[in-house]
Amino acid sequence: MPLGEFELIARFFDRGPAREAVLGIGDDCALLALPGPHNVTAVSTDMLLVGRHFLAGDDPASVGHKSLAVNLSDLAAMGARPRAFTLALALPQVDETWLAGFCSGLFAIADRHDCELVGGDTTRGPLTICITVFGDVPPEAALRRDAAQPDDDLWVSGTLGAAALAVHDLAEGRPRAAGDPARLRLDRPEPRVALGLSLRHVARAAIDLSDGLLGDLGHILDRSRAGAEIDWPAVPVDPALDGLPDALRRRLALAGGDDYELLFSAAPENRSAIEAIGHRLGLPLARIGRIVAGEGLRLHDARGRPLAVDGHGFDHFA
Amino acid sequence: MPLGEFELIARFFDRGPAREAVLGIGDDCALLALPGPHNVTAVSTDMLLVGRHFLAGDDPASVGHKSLAVNLSDLAAMGARPRAFTLALALPQVDETWLAGFCSGLFAIADRHDCELVGGDTTRGPLTICITVFGDVPPEAALRRDAAQPDDDLWVSGTLGAAALAVHDLAEGRPRAAGDPARLRLDRPEPRVALGLSLRHVARAAIDLSDGLLGDLGHILDRSRAGAEIDWPAVPVDPALDGLPDALRRRLALAGGDDYELLFSAAPENRSAIEAIGHRLGLPLARIGRIVAGEGLRLHDARGRPLAVDGHGFDHFA
Repeated sequence: MPLGEFELIARFFDRGPAREAVLGIGDDCALLALPGPHNVTAVSTDMLLVGRHFLAGDDPASVGHKSLAVNLSDLAAMGARPRAFTLALALPQVDETWLAGFCSGLFAIADRHDCELVGGDTTRGPLTICITVFGDVPPEAALRRDAAQPDDDLWVSGTLGAAALAVHDLAEGRPRAAGDPARLRLDRPEPRVALGLSLRHVARAAIDLSDGLLGDLGHILDRSRAGAEIDWPAVPVDPALDGLPDALRRRLALAGGDDYELLFSAAPENRSAIEAIGHRLGLPLARIGRIVAGEGLRLHDARGRPLAVDGHGFDHFA
Repeated sequence: MPLGEFELIARFFDRGPAREAVLGIGDDCALLALPGPHNVTAVSTDMLLVGRHFLAGDDPASVGHKSLAVNLSDLAAMGARPRAFTLALALPQVDETWLAGFCSGLFAIADRHDCELVGGDTTRGPLTICITVFGDVPPEAALRRDAAQPDDDLWVSGTLGAAALAVHDLAEGRPRAAGDPARLRLDRPEPRVALGLSLRHVARAAIDLSDGLLGDLGHILDRSRAGAEIDWPAVPVDPALDGLPDALRRRLALAGGDDYELLFSAAPENRSAIEAIGHRLGLPLARIGRIVAGEGLRLHDARGRPLAVDGHGFDHFA
C-alpha cells in the first residue's frame, strides 16, 4: 500500500525533536527563536521544477542537494549564516526509493551547514521543489547588491563555466557521465557559505552567480548605479573549458550560469585581507576588474582592447 | 514582445521601498528585523497547483486571494500576527491579464492583514504558487496542537461544510456560479487572523480546518495524546447544506475540508471570555464538544447516541 501524506512526512522528513527551532515539523507553523539582538533574518526562496531545473532521471540525491544548495547560495551572497528552511514538495506519486535518495542529498548538505528543516507541505503533482531558507546577519554587515562603490575591486570565487559546459554538452546530445567534474559542478554546486560569512565587513556588494557573471554583475551595477570593467584574462575559467574555441569558452564562463560562485566588490585596501580569506578557506579568489563611475560593463583583453560582451544572464521568460 | 523575468517582477510584484522589511524585493535575500524581544517567528509554507488546488479557468483574483489566505490561516491557528511573505511562482507563459488579476487578489488580502511581499522567485512551468509566510507570536501564547487538556471545551468558528458542498457539486458536474455563497467560501476563504490573535492566553490548542474537522481534530488529539467527544447538533453546519440528506450533510460538515475556520480547545472557565470575543469580532463561535482523557473521537446525536464517524480528512496521497 502506498504511503499516505502523514506517514510520508513522518518517515522521510520528521527527524525528531527540533534542535534549533522552538517548534519544528507537525504544527500549523514552525516557531523560530530570535537571531539575537544585533541580527536580522535573511530570507530567500527558490522553486525547482522537473524538466526545467533538473531531469526526471537525475540522481535524486543530487536533486536534494541542489534544491537546498541554491538557496544556501543566496544566504552566502548576503553574508548570512544558515539556520532553518521549509520545504514544499509536489510528487507525482510516492516513490520511496526516490524520496530516500532525495532526502539523503538534502539532509547531508543541510547538516553540513547546520540548517534545520522546520516545516513544509506535500501535495501530488508534477515533481516540484520549493525551499525557503532563513539565516542570520547583522544588518550593517549584509552584502547588499546596492553597496558597490566606484574604484571597488571586483572579485570572484572558484572557477567559472564548468556547469555551463555540462548544460551545453547535454543540449548538444553529449551528456556527461555522472562523475564527470563538469557534471558535478552542475549537479552538486557548493554554496560559498563560509566565504560569505568571512566577507562580512570586508566586501561591499555581493551576488551569487546563478544566471552568469555578466547578467548577475548587471544586477549589482543596476542597484549600485555604477559601471564596471572586467579584465578577461583575470577571469578564472574552469580547466574543463581548456581547448574550446575562444568565443564558446568566453560565453560559457561569462554568461553560462549555474556556477554558484560569489561575485563581490571590495575596497582596494582590503586586498590582502581577501587573499588571506581565500588561503584560509582553500578557495581561489580572483580579482577580475573594478567598479567605475557611470554606467555600462566593459570587457578588456590582455592588451586592454575591448571585447564584445555577447550573451546575457538567463531569463526564464526570454 | 512578452515581458522578461525581471520586467515581470518590476511590473507586477515590486511595489516600491519595503515598509516592514529592512530590505525587500531585488537582492539575494530579503532582510527582516526582529519581531521584538518577547516574540518568536512563526513560519508556514503552502504550495498550490493548477488542476489540484484550483482550475486553470478560475478567477485569477480568487487564486491570488486563496494562495495567501491558506497561509495566513496557518498563522491564525498559531495565534501569530502576519508580517511578511515570499512568493515562488511558476507560469506557463507571461499572461499579463492573468497576472494583474492574480496580483489584485493577492495584494488586497496582503494589505488587509499588513503582510508584506518581501521576496520570491519566478520560473516557467505548470502554474504553481508556493508562498511562505512569517508572523510574530510570544512563544508562551502560541496555540500549539499539543496543548489540549482533558475537560477542555472544543470550539469552532463560523460555519462548516459550504466549501465542501461547492467541491461536491463541481465533482457531480453541477458547478456553482462564481457569486454563489458556497462557491465564495471555497474560492475566497477568510483566514481567522483576528480570532487567532484574540485567543492568545485564552485558548490552549488550535488548528485551522483545511482537511475537515475530523481529520484536523485528529492532529490535535494525536499531538495532545487525548480523545474527544463531539456533540453533532452543536456543530455549526452552514445553511447552504440545509435540506441535504443527513449522511451527506454530516460528511460535508465533518470531513469536507476547505473551510479555514479555527478549531480550538479552551478551559471551561474561559467560556464567557470566548463568547465575548465572538461578539466583538461578529464571528459565531460554537462550543461543539470537549477533550477527554484516553484516545479516540466519539460523535453523539441530540440524545447522546453514538453516530458513526465516517469520512476522514483529506490526504493528498490517499
